[in-house]
Parts: sequence; structure tokens; C-alpha cells
Amino acid sequence: MNKITILIHCKDRPKIIASVTSFIAEQGGNIVYIDQHVDREQDIFFMRLESEFSSESFSTEHFKSVFETGLAKTFEMKWRIYSSEKKPKMALFVSKYDHCLYDLLGRYNSGELNLEIPFIISNHLDLKPIADSFNIPFYHIPVTKELKDEAENQQLELLKNHRIDFIVLARYMQIVSGKLIDQYPNKIINIHHSFLPAFVGAKPYHSAFKRGVKIIGATSHYVTEELDAGPIIEQDVTRVSHSHAISDLIAKGRDLEKIVLANAVKLHANRKVMVFNNKTVIFS
Amino acid sequence: MNKITILIHCKDRPKIIASVTSFIAEQGGNIVYIDQHVDREQDIFFMRLESEFSSESFSTEHFKSVFETGLAKTFEMKWRIYSSEKKPKMALFVSKYDHCLYDLLGRYNSGELNLEIPFIISNHLDLKPIADSFNIPFYHIPVTKELKDEAENQQLELLKNHRIDFIVLARYMQIVSGKLIDQYPNKIINIHHSFLPAFVGAKPYHSAFKRGVKIIGATSHYVTEELDAGPIIEQDVTRVSHSHAISDLIAKGRDLEKIVLANAVKLHANRKVMVFNNKTVIFS
Amino acid sequence: MNKITILIHCKDRPKIIASVTSFIAEQGGNIVYIDQHVDREQDIFFMRLESEFSSESFSTEHFKSVFETGLAKTFEMKWRIYSSEKKPKMALFVSKYDHCLYDLLGRYNSGELNLEIPFIISNHLDLKPIADSFNIPFYHIPVTKELKDEAENQQLELLKNHRIDFIVLARYMQIVSGKLIDQYPNKIINIHHSFLPAFVGAKPYHSAFKRGVKIIGATSHYVTEELDAGPIIEQDVTRVSHSHAISDLIAKGRDLEKIVLANAVKLHANRKVMVFNNKTVIFS
Amino acid sequence: MNKITILIHCKDRPKIIASVTSFIAEQGGNIVYIDQHVDREQDIFFMRLESEFSSESFSTEHFKSVFETGLAKTFEMKWRIYSSEKKPKMALFVSKYDHCLYDLLGRYNSGELNLEIPFIISNHLDLKPIADSFNIPFYHIPVTKELKDEAENQQLELLKNHRIDFIVLARYMQIVSGKLIDQYPNKIINIHHSFLPAFVGAKPYHSAFKRGVKIIGATSHYVTEELDAGPIIEQDVTRVSHSHAISDLIAKGRDLEKIVLANAVKLHANRKVMVFNNKTVIFS
Repeated sequence: MNKITILIHCKDRPKIIASVTSFIAEQGGNIVYIDQHVDREQDIFFMRLESEFSSESFSTEHFKSVFETGLAKTFEMKWRIYSSEKKPKMALFVSKYDHCLYDLLGRYNSGELNLEIPFIISNHLDLKPIADSFNIPFYHIPVTKELKDEAENQQLELLKNHRIDFIVLARYMQIVSGKLIDQYPNKIINIHHSFLPAFVGAKPYHSAFKRGVKIIGATSHYVTEELDAGPIIEQDVTRVSHSHAISDLIAKGRDLEKIVLANAVKLHANRKVMVFNNKTVIFS
Repeated sequence: MNKITILIHCKDRPKIIASVTSFIAEQGGNIVYIDQHVDREQDIFFMRLESEFSSESFSTEHFKSVFETGLAKTFEMKWRIYSSEKKPKMALFVSKYDHCLYDLLGRYNSGELNLEIPFIISNHLDLKPIADSFNIPFYHIPVTKELKDEAENQQLELLKNHRIDFIVLARYMQIVSGKLIDQYPNKIINIHHSFLPAFVGAKPYHSAFKRGVKIIGATSHYVTEELDAGPIIEQDVTRVSHSHAISDLIAKGRDLEKIVLANAVKLHANRKVMVFNNKTVIFS
Repeated sequence: MNKITILIHCKDRPKIIASVTSFIAEQGGNIVYIDQHVDREQDIFFMRLESEFSSESFSTEHFKSVFETGLAKTFEMKWRIYSSEKKPKMALFVSKYDHCLYDLLGRYNSGELNLEIPFIISNHLDLKPIADSFNIPFYHIPVTKELKDEAENQQLELLKNHRIDFIVLARYMQIVSGKLIDQYPNKIINIHHSFLPAFVGAKPYHSAFKRGVKIIGATSHYVTEELDAGPIIEQDVTRVSHSHAISDLIAKGRDLEKIVLANAVKLHANRKVMVFNNKTVIFS
Repeated sequence: MNKITILIHCKDRPKIIASVTSFIAEQGGNIVYIDQHVDREQDIFFMRLESEFSSESFSTEHFKSVFETGLAKTFEMKWRIYSSEKKPKMALFVSKYDHCLYDLLGRYNSGELNLEIPFIISNHLDLKPIADSFNIPFYHIPVTKELKDEAENQQLELLKNHRIDFIVLARYMQIVSGKLIDQYPNKIINIHHSFLPAFVGAKPYHSAFKRGVKIIGATSHYVTEELDAGPIIEQDVTRVSHSHAISDLIAKGRDLEKIVLANAVKLHANRKVMVFNNKTVIFS
């Protein structure tokens, strides 16, 4: 049994749903999941389908080509089709904080994540023992002002060689340049330790403490050129009070960061996120 | 433009989605919303569609009949079809507590609820002034052990005469008998002031206090013969601590009850709830 | 039995707690509640006590004077002492939105609020019927650019004549001038319909929609000269998704606004809030 | 500087707070934290203090003896006094699930937990590699029906030899007998994977799925003879829907279990929990 996931978006107009479902039926597919959304402001139609094809001669590549000519062209659709056989490959970028790394590798180990982690990149050696204990290759690529360009070239080479599908910055603490972002548009996931758009930039827990907020948050978003301004994938919050020092906010925040980043990674790896106009559509 | 909402469930099998969407297209409909769910344990397929028909000759009644013969029969579907022109009629049953009543009438007044409230029934006169201030007819039907049967007959007559679609027990504090339940299966919505299935029955806040829970809840569910055991529509919770007395739990609980009941009413009125096997499927 | 609540703050130093508790014991008081907080950044000590005095000759005014000379002077304390006999008087300022007004008056009616509401002020007549139905005097004071100064004088006169203790802007939709703020420092409570400091100013739900946040919030704070930048008393949030239109955010937000404002009002009325350095200490 | 934490409970009566604070002042102590609670139903007074003693000759043992004779006797107080120099020793009991173990050891490593973990006990060998990677001794003590008594003797010996202060069952999956419970009353912390008192006993996620709840929870409590009925320390919940299979509930539950257990451990280790009448008082 072959199973594919289809993501579509296009200008909204009548008969899209019926056209897509008929097309898939004609191709011998059985739809096992369908969900859709219309952005009424932008007048854009979004759809996510999962379809099974029992024919032994089914080929995802062939389906893609008939999908384009037989359907997508008519509606001027942008689309992506994924075979469920191929797990996406995720590169992990870390620095010195270990909580998100432990959390993701723990989930990876327990089979919770539908993806592969070919390697971990870090600008420091601190977390190498953790990578080792999970048997994941660890590349130490130092980043300094002078070395930044060179470092990114090394990163890109590794990413290309391993055919990485998406990148997760698990508290990487470095600003990623346009060179990387352009190669992985809406494919670099960051965790920011505030409830965006509040407290953009460095030291958000310090800013939250200073402002005296009663709730702190964490936000996972795709990285774009503008700092902390990319499409938001997932957010969560927790209560704090006057009795919490900055160190308490940081400790409570770690728990938020772990869960928010893990959820964003799962949504992305399961192809449940679509991006349009710097916002996400998250399918269930 | 005619708009209808279709709710379907049937044994799961291939081609249901394509068959339904094709059928609607053939009938001249444009699907504007589709969502589905498969209960893998029971092997049951659930679907909710909204479809628009631009033809002036469209008739919901005629559509229902061709839907049954041309599609539903083949798949042995159970289905309901609603015209968006007809707002559902809701009867409110209250007793002496006013918070849920104020809340629902405030939302009704502000246009938040897509329904009509032809009348309010109460076994006490206490809340009549509120009904009056919102200009909603108020029927006082006392309920005592001796009068219970007679009272229910009066209630049923009112419900029938006004062609009531569903009933909301807004802290009605009386056990509704099988006579009413049989006439309105999965159409009587109750708000229970605990996080079910914890603390079934009377005085749940007292029980929660005694057990020393750190979180209390409220649950809105359809009324079935078994007390507080019907399909759950919506739940919510809030934190409490050792410092809260029973009276504090009651006060905090009021806020939960209002919001949970209002959400359940909105879901039901917007035909987003399906019931199967004493559980609900809630469409988005 | 006389009961008083004491709020103290001063530079932190040894022996404050023991000095205060001994002083109260010497005066014949029995402490029934004590809570304290030290702001380690600012090195400031905060304390809240409730104490009962059984002596029939007890006078709050006399206690205040000996408290100042016998204790507060030594520690250079800032303090406030309230008799529990006197409920604080709250003025409600509203405009056209009714949800916070209904909510507060419903709680007031049910005895949930430990305060008095001598009157409601509005720049529009729309909500007068609600005030009438709850039997609370309603003053219509129109506010236009030309009339603003005159209107504020009228407001101030009413506030003074009724010896109002604090003001609640229940979606008042007007910017309050420094003239009022100076008379009621940290005594004007506003409800802002966003999770501050995100989305300061007008139309926060529109901004939240545009940014594509996954959680929206509401914030109750004391009004200061800088817009939406005063000390935060209470915040709460709720989840939203891409499927929610701006109108949905507004509807969901109403529920947040009601609860957040009501909580802030209760905290203030129960003398549980202290303000220092544009932040609040909230006692339990 | 010596720092101690004092926990007191006794029958409520006037002057307790002043007596305690005066006593500490007389002994040369400076109170840096004080919090109290009165259970009005049981008429019991609870108090938690932190006090610093600058005298070099201060001895916790001596303070305890004068505290008993000079103060506690008069008020018939039950009390415990802890020196902040001595970190509590926690024994971890695990079985095959690794998520709570990883989580606690990750926090332990990062310095978030104010305690020592002298060893881990397990009835299986599966998690030994994790213990090894964190350099914590791991004792494999198999438990079968026949070996249960023998196994508990081995456990008790280890606990005694290492002067263990409290035990954490991190998804230990075995029922602990009265022999252990009696030795560690209110000192054995369990994590139950439901929102107690709903779904006591085995397979709570299966029961939650069957009941169709919209929210699931986790509960950390002290172990008593009655299954899952001990004093609740901490609870938390998360939303679920009809679309979640049992495996999804289990995965979402893991995140709850980790955080709820970690919070309970921190509260206990920081001596912030008092137990009375099968309920907890949790100080802030």
C-alpha cells in the first residue's frame, strides 16, 4: 500500500474540493484524510489530504506529474506531495543549552518523532557527550565573526551531503544568515523564549521580569531574515508571579521551550504546516 | 444562495469522501467546508460538510430525498442535513442560579449565538426578572415529587408547540426523566460542575475540596438516563490551592460553568457535534 | 471584633517581620494572615497582614498614629491600613461594550465583590438600561475633543462627592488624562484586550490576527501616563488558530476580558495588590 | 550564615504568629520568609518560615531542643526543622519507561533540583544505560510475586544505608507495600497518569479514551495504603479531542507526567509541602 500526503494552496474558487477528490479517485486513490481552510482575507484556499493507492504499479513521481498537468495547472495550484515511506531528515543545531536537545533526542529514541536525525551541528563542544550517548554524529563548527562565512559554508555542505529536509535551531543562540535561510525557506525552525511578538531579541526573560508580566511564553517559528518575525508555528505559556526571580523564569521557560519546540517539530515533520503571507495554517 | 450543512456517519470503507464530494458536485453544489474523522476502534467514518447551491430552484427537502436514494443508501449512512436559513430553537431550563442564564442571554443579545430562544422554563420564580429584562417569555412550572409527571407534561407541550430543537439545562438542578430524554436524544445539554468523570452527582465542589485536588473543572454533556454519564461536549479547568475554601471553589467554578456551557451551546447550535457510542466528535 | 489589613513596604533589613508582629501583639492584635515578599533586585521588603483586635476601645485611627510613630518611622515604611468594615467604593466607566459591565454587575449582585458601586459613568447612553436593571445610578457625560476638559471636571466632581476609592475602566475606550491619573495613582484599573506588552494601543485583535499568533490574551493594569504601560495586575490567555477570523478573536477575547478584569477588581478591592517601580506584588 | 526552614502545624489559637516570630528573634534569628495557612474546617494552623542565624555558635540541633521546650510544647505544635546545608537524599525507583527518568536526571544535571540522588532502583535492567550515562549507581532488584518480600527487604536496606529522605516512583509500575510506606510516610512520591480522582488504577489513558474526555491529566501524590488515594501534591492537564487515539493520549500524557512529577519533587525537596488529613498545604 502506498500512502501520500498532498498539500495544496491556490486562489479560492468553486469546485476545488470536488475536483481534487475526483482526480484522486480516478487515479485509483482512496482518501483517508482531508482537511481544508479558506483564508477569507486573502481569498486563498488551503488543503491537506492523505491518500492510499493499492496498485502495485503506483509511483509517487508519476502521480506528481499527472497531478500537475491534470489538475494543478487548471487551478494554478502550488502543491507539495510527500510519500509516507520517506521520513524527513532533520539537522539539529545546538550551542550550550542542553534541555531542548535532551528533550528532542529522548522523543526521537522513544519513537515519538517521525523523522531521521543524521547529525547535530554545534559551535561548541559542550553537548558532544549527549550526542555520543544517543549515537548521533556531532560536528563541531566554531562560529566567530571572522569564521562565520566559512562556518556557514561547512554547514551548507553537510546539509547538502545528507540531503537534509529541515533544520531545527534548538537554542542555537546564533543568528542564521540569509545564505542559509534562502536555501531552506520555511524549513528552519527556531524556538524563541518569549511569547512573540512580545520581547523580540536577546534576553526576553529579563525583559519579561522587568515589565512585570504575569504569564511568560515560548514561540516556535520559521526563521526569516527579520529577527523573530517569521511565521509562528506553535506557542505556549505558563503563569509567573512577583515571587519569581529571573532565574525562576528561565527554569520555568525551559519546560515551555522543550514542549513548544517538540510540538513544532512534530507538526512540520508530519507535513501539517503550510505557510502563506508570513502566517501558518496548521492542520490537525 | 442556499447553504446547507451535512453530517454523515457510516461504517468506514474506501471511496466515501470521493463519492460524497462527487455527488454534491453533480447536484450543483460547491463545497466550502469539509472535515472528517475515522474512529479506528469502531471503524466508523464521520464527516461534516458545508455546501452552497446557487440554483434558484434548489430545495433542501428535494436534496435530502436524492441524497438518501442516490448516495446514503449505498453506504448505509446515517445523516442529517440542515439549511443555514433555519436557526435552531433552544429552550432554557433554569432554577435559582443566575450566572449561566446571564451569560447565555448576554451572548444571545450581542449576536454571538446562532440560535433562537423562544422561552425559559423554571421551577422557581427567582430568575423571572432577568428573563423579563431580556424580553424572553418565562414559564414557571413548579416541580415537586407529586407534580413531577404533570410538570414534565407541561414542559413537553411547550417544547412541542414551539418546535424546540434542543434544550439547555443552565444549572436546572433537577433530574430530567426518561420521558424527556427519549424525545430529545443527544439534544439536552447539561452543565455539570466538575471535571467528569470525577465527582459525579451532587455537591461536586464539596467533594473536590475534601479530596484536595489542585485543579477543578466543569463539563458540558448530553443528558442520558445514567446520571452525569452522557457524551461529553466540552470541558475546562482552573487551578485551585489549599487556600481556597469551598465558597472559593464555587465562585471560581461559576466562571468555568459559564464558558464551558456557552461553548457547548455554540458547538451544538452550529451543528459541529456528532455522537456515537456515548462519545462526541467535535468538528472545528 | 475589629479587623484591619496592613500593607507595608520599605527597604529590606533584618528584624522587620519580628518587629511588626511584636508591635501588633503589644497593641492587643491577633495576626490571622501574614504574607511577605522581598524584591531582591531592588532590595525592597513588602508585607501584607490581617489582624484582629478584640478590645472594644480599638480605633483604627488611633492604631494608625501609634503604628506610624512606634514602628513605621524606625523602618522608614510606606504603609496603608484599612478597616475591614469599610468596603471600597468603585466607580465604573463604560462606553458601548456591555460584556464587562454585565459581568461585573452580575458578580456584584451575587455578592462576589467586596465593594460598593455608587455609580456608572459613560460617554454614551447605550448601556443605561443595564445600569437601570441593576438599580445603579448612571451618569451620561459625553466626551468630545472640545468637551474633554469639561467632562473630566464633571467626572472628578462625581468621584469626589461620592468619595470614590478606585475607578474601573470597563472597556471605556477613552484615554484618561493626567488630571485624573494624578488624583487616582494606581487606583484606575483598565482592561486591555491583548497580552501586553504585545499589541499596545488600538485594535490589538487585528494586530494579533495579522501576526498569526496562536494564543491571544487580555491584561488588566493600572493606568499611567504612558499608554498600556502601567503595572500589570492580571493576565490570561486562550488558544486560537488559523481558522479564527478577527471576529472570532474578538468573541473569544470578550471572555478573557471579563474574567481578567473581574480578577483584577477583586484583588484590588481586597487590598491584595502593592505597586512598586511599575510592577505589582499580588498577595494570595 | 546558618539558614533553617521551619514547618509547624497545631490547633489554631490566638498569638501563634507573634509567639513564633518573637521566639526566633530572641534566639538571634532573622526571618527571611514567612507564610501561613489556617484550615477553617479543621481549625488547624500551618506555618512555614525561613530564618537566618548569623551567630557562629548557632547549632540546628540546639535550636531544635529549645524550640521544643520554649515554644512548641506550649502550643502543642508538630514541627520539623531543616538546615539548608543538608540537601535531601532522593531514591529513584523506575521500571521500563524512561521519560520521567530522563527528565529528572536532566534537571538534576542542570542544577535545577536542590537534592542528591544516591542511587536508582529498578526491577528491570532496561534503564541502566541511562543511569550509567548520568553516573548514578543503578541497583537491579527484580520483583516477582515470590520475590516481592525479599525485594522490599533489599530496597529497605539500600534506603537505610544511604539515609534516604524520600523516594520517587518515576513510573515504577509496582504497588509498594505497607512495609515501605510505614517507613516513609508522606515521603514516597508517585506520578499517576490521570487527573485523580478520575481513572484510579491501571490503564487510565484507556479509560479516558473510552469515556471521551476532552482533557487528560496527571497527578503526583504521596503514596498511602489505598491505591491512588494519597494526598495530592500537584496536578496538570492538557486538551485532547476525538482525533486522538490512545497512543496519542499516552504521548501527550508523557509530557504532563514529566512536568507534574518534577514540580512535586521540587516542592517536596524544598520543604514546601505539609500534609494533614490526607490533603496537602503547598507553600509558595
